[in-house]
Amino acid sequence: MKQLSTNDTNFTQAFAAILSQRENNTSSVSEQVREILTEIRHKGDTALFAYTQQFDKVAISETTLRVKDTEILDAWNSLSSSLREALILAAQRIESFHKTQIPENIKYTDQAGVLLGMKWLPLDAVGLYVPGGKAAYPSSVLMNAIPAKVAGVKRMAMCVPTPAGQLNPLVLAAAKQAGVTEIYRVGGAQAIGAMAYGTKSIAPVDRIVGPGNAYVAEAKRQVFGYVGIDSIAGPSEVVIIADAQNSPQHIAMDLLAQAEHDEMAQSILMTDDESFAKQVIEEVYKTLIDLPRAAIAKTSWENHGAVIIVKNWQEALELVNQIAPEHLELMVEHPKTLFEGVRHAGSVFMGHLCPEAIGDYVAGPNHVLPTNRTARFASGLSVFDFLKRTTFMETSANSLRRIGPAGVTLAEAEGLHAHAASIALRLKDLDPLP
Amino acid sequence: MKQLSTNDTNFTQAFAAILSQRENNTSSVSEQVREILTEIRHKGDTALFAYTQQFDKVAISETTLRVKDTEILDAWNSLSSSLREALILAAQRIESFHKTQIPENIKYTDQAGVLLGMKWLPLDAVGLYVPGGKAAYPSSVLMNAIPAKVAGVKRMAMCVPTPAGQLNPLVLAAAKQAGVTEIYRVGGAQAIGAMAYGTKSIAPVDRIVGPGNAYVAEAKRQVFGYVGIDSIAGPSEVVIIADAQNSPQHIAMDLLAQAEHDEMAQSILMTDDESFAKQVIEEVYKTLIDLPRAAIAKTSWENHGAVIIVKNWQEALELVNQIAPEHLELMVEHPKTLFEGVRHAGSVFMGHLCPEAIGDYVAGPNHVLPTNRTARFASGLSVFDFLKRTTFMETSANSLRRIGPAGVTLAEAEGLHAHAASIALRLKDLDPLP
Repeated sequence: MKQLSTNDTNFTQAFAAILSQRENNTSSVSEQVREILTEIRHKGDTALFAYTQQFDKVAISETTLRVKDTEILDAWNSLSSSLREALILAAQRIESFHKTQIPENIKYTDQAGVLLGMKWLPLDAVGLYVPGGKAAYPSSVLMNAIPAKVAGVKRMAMCVPTPAGQLNPLVLAAAKQAGVTEIYRVGGAQAIGAMAYGTKSIAPVDRIVGPGNAYVAEAKRQVFGYVGIDSIAGPSEVVIIADAQNSPQHIAMDLLAQAEHDEMAQSILMTDDESFAKQVIEEVYKTLIDLPRAAIAKTSWENHGAVIIVKNWQEALELVNQIAPEHLELMVEHPKTLFEGVRHAGSVFMGHLCPEAIGDYVAGPNHVLPTNRTARFASGLSVFDFLKRTTFMETSANSLRRIGPAGVTLAEAEGLHAHAASIALRLKDLDPLP
Repeated sequence: MKQLSTNDTNFTQAFAAILSQRENNTSSVSEQVREILTEIRHKGDTALFAYTQQFDKVAISETTLRVKDTEILDAWNSLSSSLREALILAAQRIESFHKTQIPENIKYTDQAGVLLGMKWLPLDAVGLYVPGGKAAYPSSVLMNAIPAKVAGVKRMAMCVPTPAGQLNPLVLAAAKQAGVTEIYRVGGAQAIGAMAYGTKSIAPVDRIVGPGNAYVAEAKRQVFGYVGIDSIAGPSEVVIIADAQNSPQHIAMDLLAQAEHDEMAQSILMTDDESFAKQVIEEVYKTLIDLPRAAIAKTSWENHGAVIIVKNWQEALELVNQIAPEHLELMVEHPKTLFEGVRHAGSVFMGHLCPEAIGDYVAGPNHVLPTNRTARFASGLSVFDFLKRTTFMETSANSLRRIGPAGVTLAEAEGLHAHAASIALRLKDLDPLP
């Protein structure tokens, strides 16, 4: 863990080091992934089943590839009622928030008499990737599937690897709650290839979303353009701006909640109170010991954690806007005022009583967020990821007369004479003005 | 050119062949691009200037890299007044349409008492790539830069190669009209690398947009994730649904307007009238001869053009939704009714008097559109490409009591105990209910 103060003489370099240490690089697996994708594309199911045998040590066939409806139902019934109720509450709240994102179509006739507009339409088919094993999170299933459902996507296909045959019933239960029933037990680059190009057993989709390991990320990068993808997820991160009014224990737990994700996760505390910072650091080490994922959290905190003493919140905001964090907690007295100055962040958690974990599960906004400084240009998953826009226009005789000649001039200037003529011919053939 | 009828016994296969023949593949240049990007990243300006010497045969330095304001002004003044007026009209109409896209922020307190919201914010800095030479289109400069300006992007940097030192004054004039003044005379993968990673002379940007050759497309694919990119542009295409009420000459010119773009462009006519189809085909060959770009248009039409006889418009719509064309002309009596059934298209041009070229220049909607069947999942360039979303939330004591326990349950089920504890600790420390 690094301790910095904006007063340090070498602060700029030390802060830059924190920013640059965690870049994603999947190019080392790119050749292997290219080969897998080519095989899937040309050999379909045969290649898909062979890779699944090779990587997941599972023999699957056309008849066992798809998870049966009874398995999904059994998984749902195997949950405790409190867990079922929690999944239902989370799903309802996620659905409710994402419904507020549904955008309006545009349609109007402008002053020149041209009808103009833009129509939002859902994608036909979406592929949801869910990692297997320890990182198989039911909350991620909800967060990926529900926005697609709200957008009006008719077909949602899910791929989840079952290493050594194991499949987390919570993942199946979450899929059921989100309305996903087309689930295949395959994963890795081969699953991405199958969803992108289609095989005999898996019909192709139009966009693939969901997190995965380096192979999955590189496969998504390579199929991008043939299908749509969401952003390439990197390690998760949080910045917490906290005043000394917070319980050090609360803030320490928030830092550790981020750190327990994986060894590459990053937790950064910014505070204006040096003794509060010391208390939090003490609490982190004290609490760490008892966590089931203590080893992961400790590695993350020691390698990537940071505590930065700032002179004031304005200074903190400037640093935040350079980091563009995935998660930002504003644990201060007037979080809304501070929020006004945030230019780049995936999601913001305001006030002493709103830890980031609330947003991971039950608040409603999406927890699939831009990592690794990409909040500079990217956004969390949303209904917009499952919609697309079609623009449209109609010119009348009069409006063509008003705007057509400028079109002819520009087309001629670009040397595109058929473009120009397609407008000019129609202008010529119009009846003379009355 | 292929002539098909939905009555043909082999129609399905013949139609599938039309769909699959034009896939983009940039993987053949991927190693070379990777090397260029690595060099740019590590050696900055030195590598940028060396590649520019090598590929564009131009010696540039720190002092000559950036186009001077006086050069931009001279370019503007060199245009005829009709061309200046056409650029101004086009820019005003593009700006006006894109302003209607600016979305509303969301902010509300829900029934559980949780404050929820989503805020749209502009990107800080955007890079605009403009191809050099014959494909340097001023209209594309307007279409790429104006949505960024409308979104509120403060810094717009443009790169345009100047092979053998040549720079199209129309491009500079369009840049001036769109408000772009930071213009660098570099291109290719090296320009994409410079904008993504930054060099001493070119500050890094957050998102790169604009068309380019295979090297530029592959470079954008490789920097994706480090910065944002727009979609990878493929060859352009149009589908025209036309009844026999159209002038065959008009429709032939519309088909040729698409074909004159490049040899890979695709023009498809769908009509319910066989003799009208014959007349159009005759007109295409008759008109072709006199076009300045006859050779390009002829190759495009012969290799990729198609005329499909359909029984009715419903059949045409089904084919259109399989093609997901970049451009769709509905040259029929009731285009709005037909438009209701369009599920996948980049932009739609309605009625006998609205050729696609109107949208290329002066209608207002963007002409940067999804090619190569990607309208299944992608959209034309818009204000949304230069905005991003930050979600936010705030829980009060009461709302934390209502939704917190479900969060604890889900976090425990996922084995993320610090997540659970970050909520549970706050619930425990709340004052007892009054």
